[in-house]
Amino acid sequence: MHSWKSAAPISASTPGDHDMTAGLSGDWLAARARTTPGATAVITHESQWTYGELDLLVQQFASQLRLYTKNGGRIAALLANNIDYVCLIHAAARAGAVLVPLNTRLSVGEIEWQLQSARCELLVFDQTTAVKAGDIQVSGLKMIATASLSAGHLSDKDDSTTAPTMECDQAIIFTSGTTGKPKGARLTFANHFYSATASAWRLGVLPHDRWLCCLPLYHVGGMAILLRSCLYGTAVELHDGFNVSAVSESLDSSRVTIISLVPTMLHRLLRFREGRAWPESLRHVLLGGAAAPQEIIAAGRDLGIPISATYGLTEASSQVATTVHEDMYQKPGSVGKPLLFTQVAIVDNAGRKTPPMTAGEIIVSGPTVMAGYDGDAESTSEVLKEGWLHTGDVGYLDEDGDLWVVQRQNDIIISGGENVYPAEVETVLQTHPAVAGACVVGIADEEWGQRVAAAIVLAEPEEVTAEALLDYCRQRLAGYKLPRRVVFLNDLPQTASGKIKRDAVAELVEASIQASHATN
Amino acid sequence: MHSWKSAAPISASTPGDHDMTAGLSGDWLAARARTTPGATAVITHESQWTYGELDLLVQQFASQLRLYTKNGGRIAALLANNIDYVCLIHAAARAGAVLVPLNTRLSVGEIEWQLQSARCELLVFDQTTAVKAGDIQVSGLKMIATASLSAGHLSDKDDSTTAPTMECDQAIIFTSGTTGKPKGARLTFANHFYSATASAWRLGVLPHDRWLCCLPLYHVGGMAILLRSCLYGTAVELHDGFNVSAVSESLDSSRVTIISLVPTMLHRLLRFREGRAWPESLRHVLLGGAAAPQEIIAAGRDLGIPISATYGLTEASSQVATTVHEDMYQKPGSVGKPLLFTQVAIVDNAGRKTPPMTAGEIIVSGPTVMAGYDGDAESTSEVLKEGWLHTGDVGYLDEDGDLWVVQRQNDIIISGGENVYPAEVETVLQTHPAVAGACVVGIADEEWGQRVAAAIVLAEPEEVTAEALLDYCRQRLAGYKLPRRVVFLNDLPQTASGKIKRDAVAELVEASIQASHATN
Repeated sequence: MHSWKSAAPISASTPGDHDMTAGLSGDWLAARARTTPGATAVITHESQWTYGELDLLVQQFASQLRLYTKNGGRIAALLANNIDYVCLIHAAARAGAVLVPLNTRLSVGEIEWQLQSARCELLVFDQTTAVKAGDIQVSGLKMIATASLSAGHLSDKDDSTTAPTMECDQAIIFTSGTTGKPKGARLTFANHFYSATASAWRLGVLPHDRWLCCLPLYHVGGMAILLRSCLYGTAVELHDGFNVSAVSESLDSSRVTIISLVPTMLHRLLRFREGRAWPESLRHVLLGGAAAPQEIIAAGRDLGIPISATYGLTEASSQVATTVHEDMYQKPGSVGKPLLFTQVAIVDNAGRKTPPMTAGEIIVSGPTVMAGYDGDAESTSEVLKEGWLHTGDVGYLDEDGDLWVVQRQNDIIISGGENVYPAEVETVLQTHPAVAGACVVGIADEEWGQRVAAAIVLAEPEEVTAEALLDYCRQRLAGYKLPRRVVFLNDLPQTASGKIKRDAVAELVEASIQASHATN
Repeated sequence: MHSWKSAAPISASTPGDHDMTAGLSGDWLAARARTTPGATAVITHESQWTYGELDLLVQQFASQLRLYTKNGGRIAALLANNIDYVCLIHAAARAGAVLVPLNTRLSVGEIEWQLQSARCELLVFDQTTAVKAGDIQVSGLKMIATASLSAGHLSDKDDSTTAPTMECDQAIIFTSGTTGKPKGARLTFANHFYSATASAWRLGVLPHDRWLCCLPLYHVGGMAILLRSCLYGTAVELHDGFNVSAVSESLDSSRVTIISLVPTMLHRLLRFREGRAWPESLRHVLLGGAAAPQEIIAAGRDLGIPISATYGLTEASSQVATTVHEDMYQKPGSVGKPLLFTQVAIVDNAGRKTPPMTAGEIIVSGPTVMAGYDGDAESTSEVLKEGWLHTGDVGYLDEDGDLWVVQRQNDIIISGGENVYPAEVETVLQTHPAVAGACVVGIADEEWGQRVAAAIVLAEPEEVTAEALLDYCRQRLAGYKLPRRVVFLNDLPQTASGKIKRDAVAELVEASIQASHATN
C-alpha cells in the first residue's frame, strides 16, 4: 500500500532540489474549482452545476464521509447515475477514501462478497438501491443514504491533511476473470490522470466540450468520463442510463460533442434515428466495450458519424488504443495505435512476442495499468508480469502497428456492453443438484451483440425444467447474466485433454435454437 | 540532484503494489513516434517532418551525443531556430543529457560565464553561430557543429539505459534577468509535462493543431511549444525569427491554429495586416512576455482576433495564468485564472496574503515551478519559500480570482519612500497623441533615492516639448509620479523576446543627463 501522504502544503525542504510534482493532490475537483469555477461541470435532466457549485456540494459530502471513514478507508457506492454519485466520487477523493463502485445489477450475495473482499467500511445507497441495500448483511458495515450525506452539517474537522496524492488508489473496481471469481482492480489517481491526458491528446479536447455519459458510473468507462472531464474543465451530460429517445434528443438539442457508447447502444440509436441527420457539433462517438460489428461501422461511415473505436479494459483504466474516425474508416475493425505512453505487444503461448499479423495474447504496459488486484497477490502476479498486463484478449498488430482485437478474453460473453463470464454462470448452475455439467456460451444477437445461453447435462436420474434452473440462477446472479436459452444435452463435447470445446457447444446450442424456431 | 534512473524496462517488483507511473521516460519523442508516426511534427520554410521521421533524425543525433556526454551531462545549444535545434532538444533527452539553451544575442563573455556556471561539457553550434562559437574559450569544453551530429555513424551503444525519468532536469534556462546576474532555472520533464497538460486544458488541443513558433527556442516560451506539441502529437511551424511578412503569410496560407507572440510582434502584425481579415482557422493568439497595451487588445477585439493573454515566467515553465479570448475581452488587461494545479497568491512586503484588489508580489506554487536555480542554493532559497515561487512581479487578484499583473517588481521606482510603477506612468504618456513609445525608469538621486525619468519616442511627424508632456501628466498623475527628466530617443532598446531593456534605457537616460550637465 502506498502511504497516505498529505498533499498540502507542498514543502520545499531541499532548496535547489525542489520537486513540485511530488505530492500532487488527488482532489482534482478542488483544483478545477479554483481554476474555472464558473464552467459547467454536470448536466442532468433535472438541473446543472458549475464546478464551483459542485465543489460546495462535494465539500458537504466529504465533511460527512469523514465522520464514517479514515484515510485509506473503503467506501462502497451502490448508486444510480445521478449527481449524488458524481459528488461521492469527488468526495471520496477529498476525504482520502477509496471508492468501491458496485454494479447495481448484482445479486445481494454477489454484493456482499465484494463488500467483504474489499473490506468496505461504509456503503452509500440512494432511493433506487435502498431496498437492495436493506437486504445486505455484512458484519461491521455502516450504511448511509445520499440524502443524509447532503443534508448533514458541515464538520469542523480540518480537511487539509486528508487529500490523497496521485500515487494513491482512487478506486477498486471489480472485474471478473475467466475463473469467474471477481477481482478488485486498484486504479490510482495517476492511472486516471495519464489516461485522461493520453485520451485528450488522441481525441482532442476543447473548453466547450460536452461529454454525454449514459454508461453506468460503476464501470470504468463511465467513471473515467467524469474524472477526465474534471481535469479538462469540461461538461458531462449525465443520463441515468441508456434510453434511446432521451439520448437521441440530447444529441439534437444540447450540443453534445462526445458520447461514449457500446455497440448495442449505437445499433439502437442508428435504428431510432433512421433518416435523421446527426448533429455537426458531435466530434466523436467513442465506441468501445466490445468489437464493433462491420455493419455498424459501415452505417456510421455512410451517415458521416464520427465513430472513433477504442479497445480498453478496467485493468488499464479504460482506453488502451483508440482510433479517431478519419483513421478508423480507413481501417474499419482496427482500434488503431496505443495511446501515448501506453505500449501494446502480442505474445504467443510461450510468452514470446509475435511478428506483425500474427494473433496472440494482447499485453499492455504504461502508466494507466492498475496497481494490482486488491488483496490478491496471486491473481496480480498471474496478469502483471515484468510490467506487462496480460489481458487474456486475443489480437494482432498489423504492419503499421495498428491493433486488431480478434476476441475478447477467451470465452467472455459481451451482452449489451456488460461482460458475462461463462465460468461464473457455470459455477452457479453446477451447484444445482440436478446439474452434472454446464457450459455457458454467447449466441449472436443483432441487438445485444451476444446473448447468454447454457448447455446443461443432467445428473441422472434428476430432472429439472429450464424455468426452474433460471429461477435458481435468478436468486444468485444479476439479471444480465441469466441464460436466455437453456439447452439440454447428453454430454458436452471435449478435447482429448478433457477441456470442453466451447465452439462445438455453441454450434450445438445454435442448432438447437434454429430447430426450435423451425418447429415453432 | 535526482538520480538518473533507467526508464525501461518498467518492472513490477512488488506484485499488488505496482506503480506504472514511476520511472516514466522523458524521451517523449520515442513515445510519440510509436503512437502517431505519420503525424506532422515540424514544418520549416525548407521542409517538413513527421514524428516518425523526426525520431530517426533524433536517433542519429542522440547516438553522436553519447560519444561526448554521460548521463546527466550538460549540453549547451548556441543555435538558430531550425530543425537541428528541434533534434537537439529531443536528442539531449534521449541521451540522458540536460540541455542548456544559450541566447545567441549574448556577448562571448556572457556566454562563457553561462557555460562555466552550468558546467557544460559540450557546446553545439551551427552555421549561424560558428563565428561566435569560435571565439569562446572555456577550458575542457568540447564543441561540435550540428552538421557533424547529423552526419556521424549510428553508434552501437545500448540506448535503453539512458533515458531520464520525468523527475530529471530537462533543461537549465538562464533567465534573461534585466538586472543582476543571470541564474539558471532547472526545469524538469515533469515541470514541462504539467505545463503542457494544463495549457491544453485551458486552450484546448485538437489533433490537427498547428502552432506557429517565431519566438527563439532558447527562451522557455519557444522551447515549451516544441515540448507540448510533441506530447500532443500536433505540428509546429517553426520560423527562424519574427519576420512580419513571413509570419503574416503563414497565417494566411498554412492553417496555423495557434501562434505565440509578444505585444511588439502583434503590434507590428496588426499594422502590417491593416484592412486584411485574419484567418478563421486561428484558435488562439497567445500573447505573453509583457503586458499587452490596451490599444492592442481593443484592436484585436474590433478585428475579431482570438487574443488569449498569458502571464508566465521561466521559473514556472512558461504559463502561470492564461485567459482565453472570450473571457479576455470581458476583462481586458487581466490574464485570468491560474492553470490547473497552479496556485497564485499575492503577498505584501511582510509575506502576508493580501485581500482581493490589493496589489502585492505575485507568488506561484504548483507542479510547473522549477526545481531551483542550478548550483545556487542561496538564490533558490530567496525565491522558493515553503513551496511558493516569489516572482518579484507585482499584481493583484480581483474578486473573481482573476489575476492582473501590474509590474515587474525589479522595475519599481522607489522615490522618497513612495512606490512608482513605471507602467502606470507609461500608460499615461502613451495616450498622448505625439508619443509612439515610452519607457519610464528610475535614476539614482542622492536625496530621493530614485527619481522618475521618461524616455520618449515621438510619433513622427508629431512634435511636443518636455514641458507640454509634463503638463499632460500633471493633470493625470500624483506629483511624486511625474517624470523629473524627459529624454527623446529614436527607438527603445529591446530584448530578443520583445521586452524593453529597461537597464539599457536607464543608461541612455543617465548619459543624456550627464551630457546636458556637461554642456550647461
